[in-house]
Amino acid sequence: MSTSEYQVTGMTCGHCEMAIRDEVSRIPGVEGIDVSAQSGRLVVRSSAPVDDTAVLAAVDEAGYQAVRS
Amino acid sequence: MSTSEYQVTGMTCGHCEMAIRDEVSRIPGVEGIDVSAQSGRLVVRSSAPVDDTAVLAAVDEAGYQAVRS
Repeated sequence: MSTSEYQVTGMTCGHCEMAIRDEVSRIPGVEGIDVSAQSGRLVVRSSAPVDDTAVLAAVDEAGYQAVRS
Repeated sequence: MSTSEYQVTGMTCGHCEMAIRDEVSRIPGVEGIDVSAQSGRLVVRSSAPVDDTAVLAAVDEAGYQAVRS
């Protein structure tokens, strides 16, 4: 199990969390997601290490910006 | 054409606006909706005067609170 953590800017509510969850969950190998609009923290758990580029692209697709933290 | 205006609390973003738009648009007779997270203003246009109770219930269903203004 691998865990990657990101800091997301722009989330304001539960809908924003859902939008990010929807996009990130489509990445192959992702098995768990914790995301908080309050803290801006996104944690992605995966069987094998996940490609940061794919996660950042998924967050961007949802309409937000993230950096690896 | 009838216009009713409401003040909604709790909206933070475009997703919130969409959630309210989705619910209010289901009310029979509603022909147009303006909703702004920034101002909290919801304007409902309808062919005949719309029932305030139905609008307030739709906003509640979306997860927000509104009052007639």
